Amino acid sequence: MAKSESTLDRMRREAHDIFQAALRAVDPEEAILRHVKFQDDTLSIGERQFKLTDYDRVFVVGAGKADAPMAKALESLLRDRIEDGVIVVKEGHGLSLRKVQVREASHPVPNARGVQGTEELLSLVEHAGRADLIICVMSGGGSALLVAPAEGITLEDKQKVTQLLLACGATIHEINTVRKHLSRVKGGGLARLAYPATVVSLVLSDVVGDDLDVIASGPTVPDSSTFKDVVEVLKRYKIWDRVPPSVRDRVDKGERGEIAETPKPKDPAFEHSSWQLVGTNLQALIAASKEAQLLGYRALILSARIEGETREVAKVHAAIAKEIRDSENPIPLPACILSGGETTVTLQGQGRGGRNQEFALASAIALAGERDVIVLSGGTDGTDGPTDAAGAIADGHTVERARGKGLDPYDYLRRNDAYPFFEALKDLLMTGPTRTNVMDVRIFLVDRK
Amino acid sequence: MAKSESTLDRMRREAHDIFQAALRAVDPEEAILRHVKFQDDTLSIGERQFKLTDYDRVFVVGAGKADAPMAKALESLLRDRIEDGVIVVKEGHGLSLRKVQVREASHPVPNARGVQGTEELLSLVEHAGRADLIICVMSGGGSALLVAPAEGITLEDKQKVTQLLLACGATIHEINTVRKHLSRVKGGGLARLAYPATVVSLVLSDVVGDDLDVIASGPTVPDSSTFKDVVEVLKRYKIWDRVPPSVRDRVDKGERGEIAETPKPKDPAFEHSSWQLVGTNLQALIAASKEAQLLGYRALILSARIEGETREVAKVHAAIAKEIRDSENPIPLPACILSGGETTVTLQGQGRGGRNQEFALASAIALAGERDVIVLSGGTDGTDGPTDAAGAIADGHTVERARGKGLDPYDYLRRNDAYPFFEALKDLLMTGPTRTNVMDVRIFLVDRK
Repeated sequence: MAKSESTLDRMRREAHDIFQAALRAVDPEEAILRHVKFQDDTLSIGERQFKLTDYDRVFVVGAGKADAPMAKALESLLRDRIEDGVIVVKEGHGLSLRKVQVREASHPVPNARGVQGTEELLSLVEHAGRADLIICVMSGGGSALLVAPAEGITLEDKQKVTQLLLACGATIHEINTVRKHLSRVKGGGLARLAYPATVVSLVLSDVVGDDLDVIASGPTVPDSSTFKDVVEVLKRYKIWDRVPPSVRDRVDKGERGEIAETPKPKDPAFEHSSWQLVGTNLQALIAASKEAQLLGYRALILSARIEGETREVAKVHAAIAKEIRDSENPIPLPACILSGGETTVTLQGQGRGGRNQEFALASAIALAGERDVIVLSGGTDGTDGPTDAAGAIADGHTVERARGKGLDPYDYLRRNDAYPFFEALKDLLMTGPTRTNVMDVRIFLVDRK
Repeated sequence: MAKSESTLDRMRREAHDIFQAALRAVDPEEAILRHVKFQDDTLSIGERQFKLTDYDRVFVVGAGKADAPMAKALESLLRDRIEDGVIVVKEGHGLSLRKVQVREASHPVPNARGVQGTEELLSLVEHAGRADLIICVMSGGGSALLVAPAEGITLEDKQKVTQLLLACGATIHEINTVRKHLSRVKGGGLARLAYPATVVSLVLSDVVGDDLDVIASGPTVPDSSTFKDVVEVLKRYKIWDRVPPSVRDRVDKGERGEIAETPKPKDPAFEHSSWQLVGTNLQALIAASKEAQLLGYRALILSARIEGETREVAKVHAAIAKEIRDSENPIPLPACILSGGETTVTLQGQGRGGRNQEFALASAIALAGERDVIVLSGGTDGTDGPTDAAGAIADGHTVERARGKGLDPYDYLRRNDAYPFFEALKDLLMTGPTRTNVMDVRIFLVDRK
């Protein structure tokens, strides 16, 4: 028993180490510095080069939870070559910068300060000319922070729609499809306003699949979605009749072609546009995989694109962990299984928690009684749902330990109440704000018997 | 376009071939002949040997969908050494045997013919003595076919409970826990009645994890579950108040210790007992994996233990297929991902289908637009839900093809109506009855772009 305890303790430490390795790989400042170089007055971004002597002015704009350290990295590279800038970040996620104005606004439900910050940003890009270079930094949360309701739509209308979509379990892709069509800035809107300036976007992806037109609702990216898709989403989740009439009216007009669609790939708005992904969930998983291998595990990345109802997704992961124990499929022991992406939680109860904590709780139930198995699930942004935890950690004894304290795991799961459950067990994952955001990382460790 | 079509056609054929290889590996007759040898009057079962000169008589009993070919294999080995026998199989699953009486009864809801067949079987084993050898063949479906309601419980009571459990999405483990405690034969009951004869069980597993005490509700196996577990299951799914009063009464008494528990491991009933697994889902997956490798694919067995809500499980599988396309994780192209086990469907609509067809439909939605990706999901028993199909096959163009025929895939999924969907597309998987049953096999093929 003592041996088993210490094996589990070691595995827990290792799970934490692997998670930290994932976070380091997607630290926003590091991510920018890995992809952007500045030398001999030339800015290199991936394969692309921008000779600054070709441009009158350089602006930095953007929105997202990770934007402050991304902009800070650009300031450290470009120093006085930045003329001006505006970024909109989540409350508490600001940093003091030299050239770039940092505006804080609310997230995930937008507020008036987001509208104000967005107006400042749009005013700056609208006044940029053909000889100006706009560096646009985009990261998760940008959709809620960059808010400029379309004509005839109020902020309250947009909030109402966002809340309906969040509550019904719509995917982030679907939510953004709707929001783009109710906005002046999203879905290529920023690029349209910035034209004819040159726009280069640096993107930290917080969406499954890393589609540029989805991240932060793609303000500088051609939009593949249409008003028709919006109708489909709202009807799919049966909320068409519950959205504000102004929204239905706009979407109807859009579907009939009476309102301009969001700009499509051949739109002139994108003549001088380019994009670079600087951080993704897969990069985090690859770093986690390397760390796990250093620790002696065989590591397997299942997918960076995991979606679905959290508790069911957990069962599939647990089934893989149990198969490793039984037959060393899909990989031999000691094994580390990694996955990323973002699951959804269809609320059934009034409890407190987040998708990562719920994932850990459902996994603990599925793994009850298994020896030397650890699961850690964490949000890379350090906050999981409306809680101060990033996620939680569990093992094959979690259910037994909980029952010993009089907690019924099924009951906590039924009420979506994973936070108090793991708080009581002292198994919350607490990282504090990480200022990055590439969705979630899930780690399963299975050691030899 | 023509090239893409033919690649898909080839991949479809290969998916079928891989599924057939899985079926061959768990053919019940072959499974018995691989694990049982008879030579020099000695019966070898796995590592164990039974010298027939030590026994007065040899009986063959059992229940399950695959029992007829299993018993047939024993007859072909032992010929006239078999004294007598009774097996209970599903209607239409019988074969004409020489020594063993074959009784057909209804499945999944038991009927009076099951009760009658079980009485014959129990009467035979009760009359066996210390010098007799009973070979018990067990396979999937045995739980419903071997029916001997406990004192005070009627067949109708048991049927009512089974229906409630099936409808609420309980796992097969949970359903069997309940059924064992309402039965004279399940959960070691047969072994108790057969004592002091020697009992050797040959088991084709249709349950996740291959736990012997769960397969066919473990008539010859110590039972780890208790009346307390029964209460937990019925309360977990909120059907405690809906089961017949006679059932609540028995379970209450059992929990208070007023009725004997099912026999536990040290019970004398198991003094002369042994068991041999002759076919499992994992064996089917391993055979599928070998076939896929022969066809040039890299193959990965995720798990033979997949459980959970079908449409959500499908999303996780699709996410892995998409990751292979994006980044060649978890394995390089061309790739074959395999999984087994048994998912559940929580009915939302009145449609027709089964879990494998629903899995294929949900996967088709998740994979819409992906090139050169195939999914095949099939029940190894050849019948998926209350349909004549074993499952279905889909690809990245399935959604587009369906829409071209005016079918809305989301709508069919919402109504649990996958059978007419795939029927219209001519993509049902039709194998006819296979007479085996090791749950489901799911195959994803991802080819090079």
